[in-house]
Amino acid sequence: MKEIKISIVGFGSIGRGLAREVIEKRDFLLRKGYDLKVVAVVDKNGSEIDKNGLDLANVLDKNEFSYNKTALDVIYEIKQDIMVECTPSNITDGNPGLSHILAALNSKINVATSNKGPFVVAYDKIMESANKNNVSVGYEATVGGAIPIVNLVKSNIRADKILSIEGILNGTCNYILTRMQKEELDYDEALSEAKELGIAETDESYDVEGIDTASKLVILANSLMDMNVKYTDVEVDGITRITQEALMLAEEIDCTIKLIGEINKDEHLLRVSPRLVPFNHPLSVGGTLNVIMLNTDIAGEITITGKGAGSKETSSAILSDIINIADERL
Amino acid sequence: MKEIKISIVGFGSIGRGLAREVIEKRDFLLRKGYDLKVVAVVDKNGSEIDKNGLDLANVLDKNEFSYNKTALDVIYEIKQDIMVECTPSNITDGNPGLSHILAALNSKINVATSNKGPFVVAYDKIMESANKNNVSVGYEATVGGAIPIVNLVKSNIRADKILSIEGILNGTCNYILTRMQKEELDYDEALSEAKELGIAETDESYDVEGIDTASKLVILANSLMDMNVKYTDVEVDGITRITQEALMLAEEIDCTIKLIGEINKDEHLLRVSPRLVPFNHPLSVGGTLNVIMLNTDIAGEITITGKGAGSKETSSAILSDIINIADERL
Repeated sequence: MKEIKISIVGFGSIGRGLAREVIEKRDFLLRKGYDLKVVAVVDKNGSEIDKNGLDLANVLDKNEFSYNKTALDVIYEIKQDIMVECTPSNITDGNPGLSHILAALNSKINVATSNKGPFVVAYDKIMESANKNNVSVGYEATVGGAIPIVNLVKSNIRADKILSIEGILNGTCNYILTRMQKEELDYDEALSEAKELGIAETDESYDVEGIDTASKLVILANSLMDMNVKYTDVEVDGITRITQEALMLAEEIDCTIKLIGEINKDEHLLRVSPRLVPFNHPLSVGGTLNVIMLNTDIAGEITITGKGAGSKETSSAILSDIINIADERL
Repeated sequence: MKEIKISIVGFGSIGRGLAREVIEKRDFLLRKGYDLKVVAVVDKNGSEIDKNGLDLANVLDKNEFSYNKTALDVIYEIKQDIMVECTPSNITDGNPGLSHILAALNSKINVATSNKGPFVVAYDKIMESANKNNVSVGYEATVGGAIPIVNLVKSNIRADKILSIEGILNGTCNYILTRMQKEELDYDEALSEAKELGIAETDESYDVEGIDTASKLVILANSLMDMNVKYTDVEVDGITRITQEALMLAEEIDCTIKLIGEINKDEHLLRVSPRLVPFNHPLSVGGTLNVIMLNTDIAGEITITGKGAGSKETSSAILSDIINIADERL
């Protein structure tokens, strides 16, 4: 039996979803030989700490946390194998996630995270720090939600060169465009519906202006295609000017309109833009689904589709990273 | 630089395709730190051997091999890190592949293979032998061609339980059905076309009667779903009775007909059968493509599509296994 002590830093939707899955999957993981214990939970309102493992059901029920320790306190003071960073993404300076991740790595604590921001602004720095300290960083959950795209390429397509990547990487935009086409809603109606359903944030600009998709492209380009790019290298256009009429015209030629992120290494192209996609094309997936199509030199095209968001689905990626780190390091 | 000495046992379409990719990817692999050398090539007509690495371009050009050493001679006598088994699949007793694989494992030689037969008849025995001898077996290429389904689940979806798998696992059947629908060919016409193009074998029964798909289900069930099943546990129906009229009727309700393999663990169901699939369903992929849809408890549905056959594409899976084995064992 391998004991894995983790902290959860950031206890919003993702962090709470992870806590629920840690409870849900306890027996399954024990049968596989992993005794996963959450020794600390922290968010901006305080922390819960138990070095023998918290009662997570109890923690999830609390309105107020018992301790005042901050994220950095928890990272520096609480013995843990893996720090799971789930604070909100910030692609301007990566913080607070970046400071948490670097603090953990420099304290020789492994990291698993769903937080895109740090990898958009400081991918190299994070990887250098992990290597120097001989610890691992899992960031599968930063791109594509439940789709295991990062590790798929890193672990399972070892001999291929990834020539290009195209995909739908933002479920909110995909939901809005799908509803505009299927229900003949206009943009504002579909956006309102997405907000009501909790699919879009109160400030939707991050999604609909293509910023989220562009951030994910930067991570894919740097980590899977040996590129060295930053956010400003991406041409970004969002879906705010797509009209219901445009979708109807597309439909007349058996096409839909999707917000596609694309990376082409040889052409040094990184672009987010609404594109016409034939209905029978692999990228034509509906609702909140994400899809990623790899074009490689030996295998040709490989397309993977799955749920791109959702706290439960994101937990699949985080837990998988946690187990892989445990196998490698503990 | 890590030196990897391999033998290629079976030098038909797959073995020759692998040899071509070993030449093609030599510089790429050297840059990644792998010096891949083929020290022996053997098929039923003889062998070529060079303990310092064969000149593969020269070997590919030969009509006759220089040595009389058999596969077992090569396995027992030639120093190698990985034996790559590419002989034709035989699901009755698994041989000759099974005897080659067990000989290699018992000689503490790692194995990578595209050969389904041994895993259909003796999955447990192979795994036990690998464990006992502390060597690895890569069999990614046995299912789904270039689609990295085995390692995707084993390495990257670690915390999920695979509840069910559905997929199109035979490119020949998919090609025939696609042509029958799109070009309004009857079954015999589409089959003849597939044979002319080299997509179907001279004896097509293995493909069109669903035997190939059923074999792959057995491998997926045993290796990814902790089941313990054999070929005779699969209900098998093929595509030979599908008429062009049936496909036209399906089209009237926006459906196509696909040969679907399915595994449901809780229902202890393994079945290969032609099924109606809506055009906009993830399983509705055309031509020779394969597709595999996983339904898991946390991530939900994950679908992966790619080229299911072809000697070049299969090399992607074999080479990826070789590199993973080298990382783990050499």
